[in-house]
Amino acid sequence: MEYISMTKDQLQAEHEKVSKAFEALKAKNLKLDMSRGKPGKAQLDLVSDILTVLAKPEDCVVDGLDARNYGELAGLKCAREYFAEVLGCKPEECFAGGNASLTLMYDTISKAYTHGLLHSEKPWAKLDKVKFLCPSPGYDRHFKISQSFGMELITIAMTETGPDMDAVEEAVKDPAVKGMWCVPKYSNPEGIIYSAETIDRIAHLKPAASDFLLMWDNAYCVHEFDGDYVPFPDMLSLCREAGNPDMVFEYASTSKITLPGAGVSVMAASVDNMKYMTGLLGIQSISYDKVNQLRHVKYLQNKAHTLELMKKHAAIMKPKFDAVVNTLDKEIAPLGIATWKRPKGGYFVSLDTMDGLAKRTLALCKEAGVVMTGAGATFPYGVDPRDRNIRIAPSLPPVEELETAIDVFCTCLKLAALEKLLAV
Amino acid sequence: MEYISMTKDQLQAEHEKVSKAFEALKAKNLKLDMSRGKPGKAQLDLVSDILTVLAKPEDCVVDGLDARNYGELAGLKCAREYFAEVLGCKPEECFAGGNASLTLMYDTISKAYTHGLLHSEKPWAKLDKVKFLCPSPGYDRHFKISQSFGMELITIAMTETGPDMDAVEEAVKDPAVKGMWCVPKYSNPEGIIYSAETIDRIAHLKPAASDFLLMWDNAYCVHEFDGDYVPFPDMLSLCREAGNPDMVFEYASTSKITLPGAGVSVMAASVDNMKYMTGLLGIQSISYDKVNQLRHVKYLQNKAHTLELMKKHAAIMKPKFDAVVNTLDKEIAPLGIATWKRPKGGYFVSLDTMDGLAKRTLALCKEAGVVMTGAGATFPYGVDPRDRNIRIAPSLPPVEELETAIDVFCTCLKLAALEKLLAV
Repeated sequence: MEYISMTKDQLQAEHEKVSKAFEALKAKNLKLDMSRGKPGKAQLDLVSDILTVLAKPEDCVVDGLDARNYGELAGLKCAREYFAEVLGCKPEECFAGGNASLTLMYDTISKAYTHGLLHSEKPWAKLDKVKFLCPSPGYDRHFKISQSFGMELITIAMTETGPDMDAVEEAVKDPAVKGMWCVPKYSNPEGIIYSAETIDRIAHLKPAASDFLLMWDNAYCVHEFDGDYVPFPDMLSLCREAGNPDMVFEYASTSKITLPGAGVSVMAASVDNMKYMTGLLGIQSISYDKVNQLRHVKYLQNKAHTLELMKKHAAIMKPKFDAVVNTLDKEIAPLGIATWKRPKGGYFVSLDTMDGLAKRTLALCKEAGVVMTGAGATFPYGVDPRDRNIRIAPSLPPVEELETAIDVFCTCLKLAALEKLLAV
Repeated sequence: MEYISMTKDQLQAEHEKVSKAFEALKAKNLKLDMSRGKPGKAQLDLVSDILTVLAKPEDCVVDGLDARNYGELAGLKCAREYFAEVLGCKPEECFAGGNASLTLMYDTISKAYTHGLLHSEKPWAKLDKVKFLCPSPGYDRHFKISQSFGMELITIAMTETGPDMDAVEEAVKDPAVKGMWCVPKYSNPEGIIYSAETIDRIAHLKPAASDFLLMWDNAYCVHEFDGDYVPFPDMLSLCREAGNPDMVFEYASTSKITLPGAGVSVMAASVDNMKYMTGLLGIQSISYDKVNQLRHVKYLQNKAHTLELMKKHAAIMKPKFDAVVNTLDKEIAPLGIATWKRPKGGYFVSLDTMDGLAKRTLALCKEAGVVMTGAGATFPYGVDPRDRNIRIAPSLPPVEELETAIDVFCTCLKLAALEKLLAV
């Protein structure tokens, strides 16, 4: 029975029941973490062979180049080729970096501020106002980069097919709007794959800003955990064909393919952008860790072999997502107090409570020893205008712990809803 | 006989002889590189065991933390402890980063521009003018970072004991002077160790700028190749004692201890600076490569063990420096056309020709197939006002190749001098 249809007596009886359950869970002194998209230990153990794939000096030489020494700012040729195959672009459009694509994203924005981009009239630091489009719910670390530089963050609603493109097309008429954050495949947190139409409309944008920066974070490009690999178009080609060759910077990494703290990142962009950016990046670095790049290429080999590995990750991930979504389907769906999606890839389940319940639900979770991503984190400035979106990250805990954690979560969600309905 | 004392006939005879030697060398179609401070293959092979020091999942866990996963922005505890011992500061003052200290230096300056430092009134990007002190000859990549941000580079003369401190103390009275580059031990390129008095005067500077930034690049902190390890004071303590606790940022890395492209870097600063900078660095990175940090700590163990390894590097390096300096002593010293020092650590030999000969000498070297660091590179804007300083980097070529290269160099230097003396 939906809570909304219950009488006050029924709600009070339910509140008493759920409160008891909550107290019982609290008494367990749990310490569980569903806060971040961290792979679990079983996933890390999957790839242990990468640790020793380079064992001798001669293993470190590739294409006549010693990966151990300085040089090759844009990365090993074989690493650029590997990423080009995975992303569907060209090797010369790929810059293989260090362990974090987030750092490459930050570097791009930072350089826009200090030096300007290829088509900037001046560095963004010299502008009175810079605005950036933030499809929301979205990735908190993206928004925090923009916020850190003092940009005005413009919330764009997410739809089933990606960002609300009518709103985006309208917004980019403002020359102060300098770019947009996108996680186009298995969006963080909703797990939405942008539709072909959405992608086409993005590629064909006619921004007033000549240096509009499309931040295309393809973080989950091969990260299906339910079903087969879903092909995805190369945004560099689409932008080029649409007459916007230099608008897009794409990012990805092996953080959730091999080791989260010790993977290899990639930035892909037009050859003109690559030339411009390597000119700037060459001031801050002689080269990134090519030994780790070579380790990765030898271990991952190519896209087909990578997809085989991703099937093994999927076998670990799917039961965790099932545990979350099946429990929500069973425990919460009948009560009518929240909605969510069943994603097929990525790292999150996005849940919307009734308006105004996200903060309270997560405060209760914390009380019961379950840490979740902070309420509001998926919106600009950390403020969810309807206080309803909750990002659930099921990847880190083992299934048994996860089942307890999601049990806690459902109890807290019910309690928050009952408190609200009883207070009316 | 010194060239300067030769008659025109003697000079012409010598010119003929040296020209022939030059043509003979050119005919060998050499391709030798003394341009950068790159370790040679024998040095890289020294540390091959580091490749497999982490082989199994359980090897990757330290202090209860799995180095493979996300987290620990400031680096593994054991890595911070390792660097603190090497540098003589405290673990909580150390930030263990990625593969390049250059990147940490760039990040510090970049954040001064975009966000300001701890004691900045505003971000440097908002200032009309930023000036930076560049003791010269110095490291080209330092100067290029400053230049890239549009700073005005102020040349400070280097003396036998470090930067000319009278000039430095005068210069910092200008509030637009925001900092200074230093390589205090085995300075690049001269191999000078700053004297205790110089260091003390630097620590006691009273800059007009409240956010004066002392860039203390301790790149060669354990890099003796001739004689025993030379202890060096902890600049963080000295600045703290002098009432300038937040003035200094120190940098170092294992690039020339283990693998140049795949080492670990460190930034050391006061705890207040550390808190401020990690707040900013946390926007651009979740964490650096902790697997590589752990690899390094397990392999290098501690300072004493590191110094043992450095003795092995020294055994490879010393014959190369001897080859260069002994040849110069034998071939060039009697001619009175250049001066140089015999360093005991670091990666370079710095040579001053007679005024106006550096460019021509290096152009001749290039013609004969020997690549050297570009003339002027050791001065701000790449312009050596007396066109005389040449940085020789003997580390990369094997000794046999090096002997040929230095032979070419001496021949070119003689030829350039003779051309000049005959043209008078």
